[in-house]
Formats: sequence, C-alpha cells, structure tokens
Amino acid sequence: MTTFKEFQAKYTPIINDYLEQNLAKESDDPRFAEIMAYSVMAGGKRLRPLLFLATLDSLGKDIDQKAVQTACGIELIHTYSLIHDDLPAMDNDDYRRGKLTSHKKWGEAEAILAGDGLLPLGIQWIAEGSQSAKLVEIITKAVGPAGMVGGQYLDIDTTNNDSVDAQTIDHMEWLKTGCLILASVEMATAFAGAAQEQAAKYLDFAKDFGRGYQLYDDLVDIVETSEEAGKLTHKDQEVGKNNSLTMQGAAETRQELKDLIAKGQAALAGEKAEVLLGFLDLYQKVL
Amino acid sequence: MTTFKEFQAKYTPIINDYLEQNLAKESDDPRFAEIMAYSVMAGGKRLRPLLFLATLDSLGKDIDQKAVQTACGIELIHTYSLIHDDLPAMDNDDYRRGKLTSHKKWGEAEAILAGDGLLPLGIQWIAEGSQSAKLVEIITKAVGPAGMVGGQYLDIDTTNNDSVDAQTIDHMEWLKTGCLILASVEMATAFAGAAQEQAAKYLDFAKDFGRGYQLYDDLVDIVETSEEAGKLTHKDQEVGKNNSLTMQGAAETRQELKDLIAKGQAALAGEKAEVLLGFLDLYQKVL
Repeated sequence: MTTFKEFQAKYTPIINDYLEQNLAKESDDPRFAEIMAYSVMAGGKRLRPLLFLATLDSLGKDIDQKAVQTACGIELIHTYSLIHDDLPAMDNDDYRRGKLTSHKKWGEAEAILAGDGLLPLGIQWIAEGSQSAKLVEIITKAVGPAGMVGGQYLDIDTTNNDSVDAQTIDHMEWLKTGCLILASVEMATAFAGAAQEQAAKYLDFAKDFGRGYQLYDDLVDIVETSEEAGKLTHKDQEVGKNNSLTMQGAAETRQELKDLIAKGQAALAGEKAEVLLGFLDLYQKVL
Repeated sequence: MTTFKEFQAKYTPIINDYLEQNLAKESDDPRFAEIMAYSVMAGGKRLRPLLFLATLDSLGKDIDQKAVQTACGIELIHTYSLIHDDLPAMDNDDYRRGKLTSHKKWGEAEAILAGDGLLPLGIQWIAEGSQSAKLVEIITKAVGPAGMVGGQYLDIDTTNNDSVDAQTIDHMEWLKTGCLILASVEMATAFAGAAQEQAAKYLDFAKDFGRGYQLYDDLVDIVETSEEAGKLTHKDQEVGKNNSLTMQGAAETRQELKDLIAKGQAALAGEKAEVLLGFLDLYQKVL
C-alpha cells in the first residue's frame, strides 16, 4: 500500500520535470518562456496535479505521460491565477513563495501576459493529454465567470465592505479556491472513466477537501510567521479583506475544518483511497 | 448563390443574439456579467465567428446552434484580447469602438477579470459546441504563448526599439492577429470533417486573409479619422509602435495587400466559396 508521502515523493519530481522541460518548447520567445517559468517553477506544492494523479491512482488507472501532461496543465492554470491575483490592481503583493511576484520581477505588462499565456497553455495540455472535450468543459467552467474568476471578482467587490454576510464570503472562497480543487478530482474521474456512483464519492471528498483548503489557507495566514509562509502574512485583516476566519474567528474555523476532515474521510469509505485521504493530513499543522 | 453581404446580414444578428442571451447565464454575478457584456456587445464586426461559419457553409456543413455556440466562443476570446490589450500596462487606450475601454469604464481589476473570464468561457463554448478536443487544441495554441499572447509580448518588447527588423515585426503581427483568424478557419475545417487536401486550401486562404488583415488594420490607422475608427488613430507612430506600415511605408503596404487578395482568391479556386471570398472585399476601402 502506497502512502500519501510516498506518492508525493514519487510524483512531485515527475511533475516538476515535465513542467521544466515542456514550458520553453511551447513558447515563441525564450524570454517570455523564462517569465512564465519563473512563476511556474517557484516551488509550489503541486497540490492540484497531485490530487488529479492520486485520484487516478485510487481509481486503479495507470499514470502515464498523458496523465502527467493533463495534471501539469492544471498547475499552469493555478499559476496563472496566482500571477493575476498578485497584480497591483488586485492584491498588489510584492512577494509570493519567498520570491518577488511576477510583476515586481518582470513588469506589469509581462505579468499580465505570463498569466494570459499560462491559462490557454494549461487548457491545451489538458486537451492534448486527455483527448477529451469533457475535461475541457470541466476545467473551463471551474476557472471561468461561474468559478474562479467569478470568485476573484466577488473578492475585489467585497473588500472593505462591512455589510457583506458570511454566506457571501463562503461562496466567494468556494469559487476562488474550491472550484479548481473539485475540478482536479472531477477531471480525474472522467479521465479514468469512473462510473457515476463511484465518481460521486470522489466529488464529495473533493468538496470537503476544497472547502477545507480555504479555511486552512486563512489559518496559515494567522498562524505562520511571514518567513515561513514566504509571503506577507497577517495581511488579510490589515487590508480589510473578509474571509471565513475574519467573519467567524479562529476557534470556529478550526472546528469547521475538523468536521470537514471527518466528512472527507467518510465520503471515501470503502474505496482504496489511502493516498487521496492522506491529503487531509496537510491540515493538521493549523489545528 | 449566397453573397457575402447576404450571409453577413443573416448571421450577424444570430451571433449577437446568442452572445446577448448566453453571457449572463454563464456568470456567477450579474454585475460581472454586465462588465463582460459591455465589451462583448460593443459593436464589433463579428469577423472571426463569421469566418468560422462561412467556412462551414463553403464546406457544405449545416449551421446549427452548436456551430453558432462554437463561433461565439471565438468572439469571446477575441474580446478578451482587446480588453487586455487596452489596459494601462499595455497600450493604455481610453477608447475602443467609440466607447470607453473596459478599464476606464469599470476599473482596472474589473477589466483584467473580464478578460480572464471571457477567455475560458470562450474555450468552454468551443468545447461544448464542437465536443472536440481537436478544436480546443487549435484555439488554445492560436491564443497561447506560441500564438496571440506571444505576439503581444513581442509587441511590448519591440515598442520604442529602433533596431528591430521588418521580419520580427511581420512575425509579431502574424502572432497577434493572424493566428486567431487562421484558427477560426482551421476549427471550421475540423468541425466540418473536411479531408486534409481540401482543408489545406482553406488554410492557405486564411493565411493570406489573416496577413492581409493586419496590413488593413495598420492602413485604417492612417486613413480614417478618429471619429470613423471609433478609437484614437494616427497613434501608432506617436507612441513609437513599429508595424509593417511604419517599416515599409503606405505604398508598399497597399501593394502587399493587393497581392494577398489575389493569392487568397487563387487558394480557393474550384471551391464553392463565394461567401468566404467576399471577406476580401473588406480591404477595398483602404486600397
């Protein structure tokens, strides 16, 4: 039986190698490829591609080069969202993962374009890797106006708005973060050709894990020092950002996260999903 | 025999209706849908979706609702590119098609997000309309780092650079404008299931028409008054923008455009492509 740690140790370098070797090939200009690679290779956890691959593994599907390409497409799209979120007109962040953000390093136009390049390239890799219009539908809905971008719009719309309610904040956080996590698992169920009933269990797990991830991220913001997190922490409250944690406090947020872990575990009962369940251990460090 | 004018008169309102009725449905937030619709419904010529549909028509393929959805996906992607090109960090344009640009009307974050929403939604419509991963590959390559975005990067990289050569400028213009025009035709050949030999003729036409379109656009910039063009013309030279016209002069640009029209007509000799050939008439007004 493979553990989450073993799976992570095996596939993280495979993902990193694929990204490093293929990004430059897909760009017309070497310097533009370098600008995109700067953010893609900035040392992310590769959570979403690992989630995609772990779901395939749990469903008994072999992980071949096509699966890795599809997984890496998700990571490109995630990186695009980080670059655009950091822009001066958005969160105006100078640091990300301990490095200068794309616009601080390369300039604002370059950062906008790096994101604009990574998004379609990510979708291209998903289409090429999966040869499936279904997977493209899943990812584009997840990151479009009814998903991640819709959430980012709500975020800028609710910042410094005291009258916004907890439900709106929860919904915003789901769109911003949960949708892409859910899509990573949903794409894997479609890629593996899972039957609807079995797929539904994985989607339930992904909803719990995805909602949990936003709470986790909010808690990291207050728990860790800036140095550990590699970005400016304790920032959300200063700039008037509302999130679930600022709305309901740390104690209640931790309790909600514990409940979600239990629900996520229950969703996959009876499945050979040890690796996937191991993702929930990530949350222990803020509990 | 349908003429280009008849085809345009029939399908332009069909495209506009589809866009108007479906944009709001696909968004989580009504105001965000309004921001996207502001630019989408700003009165474009719908050139790229019409090209897609006219190619289907020439290939004898019926134009149903799925074809219209796919065509409209292309228009969403084109609109995204205009919104981002106009941003302060890019061309910093205040007007487009006689209206305030998205960022002047709604704010910079909103404009970035409107583009970020329209791009995946456009790809979603193409995937849903065509049910084909192949079409997704064509469009994502055309607008990604080896296509449109790569061209936009070259554009900001070569602005105010006196040492740039004509070949680089031609290549940049092809990426920025030609790639998406070629993709509109190429997607139609795949959508219609055209045989490779026949498809190749349409791709040759599209390359000539696409190269011609950039020359046409440059010529419009010097020929029309600002009022007619709906944006600030005579601007390229002022801001140090290099394009084919500033490199080779108006007379040579017009001659190249005439040659491209003749080549485009020759490419489709023997095809029932009257409607598609009618697109070339657009260029007469700058000759």
